[in-house]
This record gives sequence, C-alpha cells and structure tokens, in this order.
Amino acid sequence: MIMTTSGAAKMLRDLYQDWTNRMTADPNLSIANLRSMFDEWGQAALEPENVTYRSDRIGGVEALWALPIGADASRVIVYTHGGGFAVGSADSHRKMAGHLAKALGVTAAILHYRRAPENPFPAQIEDAVAAYKALLAKGQEPGKITTAGDSAGGNLAIASVLKMRDLGLPLPGSVIAYSPWLDMALRGATLEANAATDALVGRPILEGMVGMFLGGSTSPLDPLANLLENHFDGFPPLYINAGSAETLLSDSENLAAKAKAQGVKVTLSVVPDMQHVFPALAGRAPEADEELARIAAWYKAL
Amino acid sequence: MIMTTSGAAKMLRDLYQDWTNRMTADPNLSIANLRSMFDEWGQAALEPENVTYRSDRIGGVEALWALPIGADASRVIVYTHGGGFAVGSADSHRKMAGHLAKALGVTAAILHYRRAPENPFPAQIEDAVAAYKALLAKGQEPGKITTAGDSAGGNLAIASVLKMRDLGLPLPGSVIAYSPWLDMALRGATLEANAATDALVGRPILEGMVGMFLGGSTSPLDPLANLLENHFDGFPPLYINAGSAETLLSDSENLAAKAKAQGVKVTLSVVPDMQHVFPALAGRAPEADEELARIAAWYKAL
Repeated sequence: MIMTTSGAAKMLRDLYQDWTNRMTADPNLSIANLRSMFDEWGQAALEPENVTYRSDRIGGVEALWALPIGADASRVIVYTHGGGFAVGSADSHRKMAGHLAKALGVTAAILHYRRAPENPFPAQIEDAVAAYKALLAKGQEPGKITTAGDSAGGNLAIASVLKMRDLGLPLPGSVIAYSPWLDMALRGATLEANAATDALVGRPILEGMVGMFLGGSTSPLDPLANLLENHFDGFPPLYINAGSAETLLSDSENLAAKAKAQGVKVTLSVVPDMQHVFPALAGRAPEADEELARIAAWYKAL
Repeated sequence: MIMTTSGAAKMLRDLYQDWTNRMTADPNLSIANLRSMFDEWGQAALEPENVTYRSDRIGGVEALWALPIGADASRVIVYTHGGGFAVGSADSHRKMAGHLAKALGVTAAILHYRRAPENPFPAQIEDAVAAYKALLAKGQEPGKITTAGDSAGGNLAIASVLKMRDLGLPLPGSVIAYSPWLDMALRGATLEANAATDALVGRPILEGMVGMFLGGSTSPLDPLANLLENHFDGFPPLYINAGSAETLLSDSENLAAKAKAQGVKVTLSVVPDMQHVFPALAGRAPEADEELARIAAWYKAL
C-alpha cells in the first residue's frame, strides 16, 4: 500500500517544526510564552461550520461549550485538551473538539483544567472528575457522556474514568483518545524509533513535562499518572488513534494491547505518516476528516 | 459623576500588564513569539453565543466569517484586527468581531491580512480593498458594508475607505473604529499624559511598530499611513471609541475633530478609565457591553 501525506497534512508538521525551532532558539522561553505558542495548535483546523460556542463553568472548572446546530443535546463529550498537562487550553482545542462534536452529532464541554507546574498531578484529574460529577448532578445520563482528549488530554480522558471507577461513580459510555501520552516513565519503543520523524515530541520535552506534572513528589509509575501501570477492569469502549510517525505511538499500541487483554472493547486506528494529534487538522486535511468519519461510525455502532 | 472600573474590566489591564512584563523580561522576543502572545487578546471576551464561523478566502485574503444566527446576511462588517500591523490575527479577534456582528445583527468577515514586517505598508490596505472589491463583485451592496477595526485595524478600517474613495469605488455605508492608531509621527498629547495609566501602549512599542509598518521607505506623514494628514471629504458616518486611560486617546479626539470639521457625521465615545480597545472585554465587562449597545443604536439610526 502506498500512502502519501496530503499537502494539507504537512501544515501540522510545519507548525510543530516551527515550535521546535523556536524552543531550540530560545531554550528559556517562559511558561507564559510556551503557553501562547502552543495555543497556535488551533491554527491547524479550519472552522467547523454551524457550530456555536458558550463560555461556562462546570463543577467549578472553566469550560467552553461547542454546540453544533442540530446536535443531540442529551449527549456530551467532556474534552480534555493536550499540551503536556502544562500548556494548551480550551481555546487552542476549540475547533478540534468542535469538529469531533459535529462528527458525532453531540455537544462538547472543553475543560480549561488547572495546569502544571502551578497545579501538579492530580489537579487535572480532579477537575475532570468534578466537571463530570457536576454534569451528572444536572441530570446528564452517564452512558451518554464520552470522555475525549488528545496527548496529555487523552491521558486525562482515560485517567478520569479510572478515577471515577475507583470512586464507584457510574461510568461514561465511551472514551476517545487522540495520540494519548500514558507512560510517564518514557519506556515506549517508538520514542527512539520515531525520533527522526516526529517534528515535536521527543525525550527532552517529555522529561520537562513529567517534571512539571509530577512535581517531584509522585512516582512516574503511580497508576493514575502512568496509565500503563493501571488495570482496565470495567472500562468503557475505547477508541484510540495515533500517527505512525510519532514518538508516542507505543503508548497507544501498549494501551490497546493491555486494555484488550483485560476485556475492553478497543479500536486502535494508526494512520500512516501522521504526526502527533493529527485530527488537529480537521477541515483542512483529508487524513483528519477520514479519521473523524471512522470515529463517528464507531460511535454510532456502540 | 463617579465612574468606577468594573472588576471584570480589570482583566484587560492585567492582560496588557502581563504582556508588558513579558516584553520587558525578554526584550528580544521573536516576532513569532510576539504574535502568539498577542493572540491572547482573544482571552478578554467571553464567547458570543449563537454565532457560527466559517474559514474562507475573500479576494485572495484569508478570512474568518462570524455568522450570528438570525443575522441579516445582506449586511457585512469587514473587520481588520489590531496589533500594530504586525501582530494580532483573525483568530485573536474572532470573539470581538463576533460580538460586534451580533450586536448589529449582521455578518462579519474578519480579515487575516498580510502583516508587517514581512509585508510593510501598504500591503494591509491593499488586502482590505481587495476583499471589499471581491464582496462587491459577488453582488454585495456597498452601502450595507461597514468597515470596522481596532487599534492599527481601526486605522485600516478608515485607510481602506480613503483608498476606495481615491480609486473611485462606491463607499461603505459606515465605519467603526475602536481606539484607532492614526498618527505614525506619534504627536498625540495623551502619549505622554496617559503614559502612567495605559498598561500596554507607549512610545517604545509604537516606534517599533512604525518601523515594521513603514519599513524605512514611507514617510510617517504619508497621508495613507498617517490618517491625520488625510482629508475626509465624502467619508461615510464614522463611530469612534476609546478609553480615557489610553495613550492613543488623542488620535481618536483629533480624528473626530478633523472629520467633523470636514463635514463627516462623527460619533466619539470616550469611556472613563478604559484601556486600549476595551470592547475586547465583550461579554465579560459591562463597559464593553454598554459600548456595543451604543454602537448598535447608532448603526440602527443611520
């Protein structure tokens, strides 16, 4: 099979390479400047049409609703954005979550959860669980909730469900993770194997983010911080995607294998030549739009 | 009259002070990092509800449509964002323009015009005129177009109309400028008088932006770059607002006096204690929402 990356998909690689160049040129960029740089993530997608937005707080957590016209309002995605638990925002992921909500025909609440290093682990998980509990308290059916997220936010979409399970809460009906970052001990084989093809994520940036997230006091093998050290008994149907070019591909593969072995209904979609969180290209690149169509088909068949 | 700044309005001052601190801490921030920092402008507003968006190109210019549900689609705002001609983007001003479009009950095309220093004067004016001509070519009635913008984009909202007039094009029905920056020779009295109260704009930052915009080859007294050196014969009704705390207040006052003396219907709204481009706070602060209501009343009475 010959796969070629669409011209449009190269935009994400170029964006990541630009960030890498800027971080190399100025290794002392402040966290404030890193945050504004990573907010450029939103540039990758085109606008999802026919989606409106609303600023809100849910369970004390700042949130941004994406409300596709005609969406089933009884169904909600709780979306946790990526950015190593330290950068990224509801705003940087507005279009990405809007496209996902529109593809599924549901609404999405994008959480602007507390970020590291000011708020280390487990503040992010606490915020996601608080928002989930607030939705339940408002009468939201748990089975009609999907937790979703990308990169570190893919971790949170899963970790928050593991935490809910441990708290004895009713669980969401499904979980979607784009390029989840799961292993805080950085043991994935693709971390080295794909180092030359991943334009953004490498060991140094991950080590920096582990440091901010765990704050020196939590073990990188803590089962709620390192989800490959957890177990998946009772976990809802799980959709995972990743690009074949990325250093974090092993995390997706290892999660899929582990959860499947433990009885979870798992779908893993690995798209050739794609970079980290390639659905960021929604509306711009066919690779992202085709992936959204696959997720929608999976969701409708649940 | 006792006026107090709302707590919510302080958010914009804090944002500007943060930018000022970051530029002071790192005087060599790259233009790429400055652009991502200024894109935080979008954080000031809350989401305008019931507005959808569409990515587009208009006359070759990248653009973002803000489409309030129920808006009169025959009426269009051509919105040029602020940021000294060098920073800011359609995305940073999405909410700001969305709020304006919603208040007026019309649609808005937010232009992502070419920026300095890569593209100095008059690239920005050329892009605004190209987009305007493309709208006319699609059958848009000129009288139902409003050019609008803030800061350097307020300049462009006016400069593009002066250029259209000089080209013999039919003119837009109205012009709205938030805190327009007009005098590239920096002669305004409030530049010094308000230096202590303006959290962002001062002589050094303006001098840097003049340098990028004019590129050393255009005089700061060129009448299309320095709108206080132009004349306003035949100019459409003009609404200007500014904050009393800002260094660029004189530009608004001098424009209002000059245009009024030359027969233009001018409304100038100066709001006590407000910072530069205070309608950025739309949805968050009453000062911004009350200003939008005044603009809407003015527009409906045209």
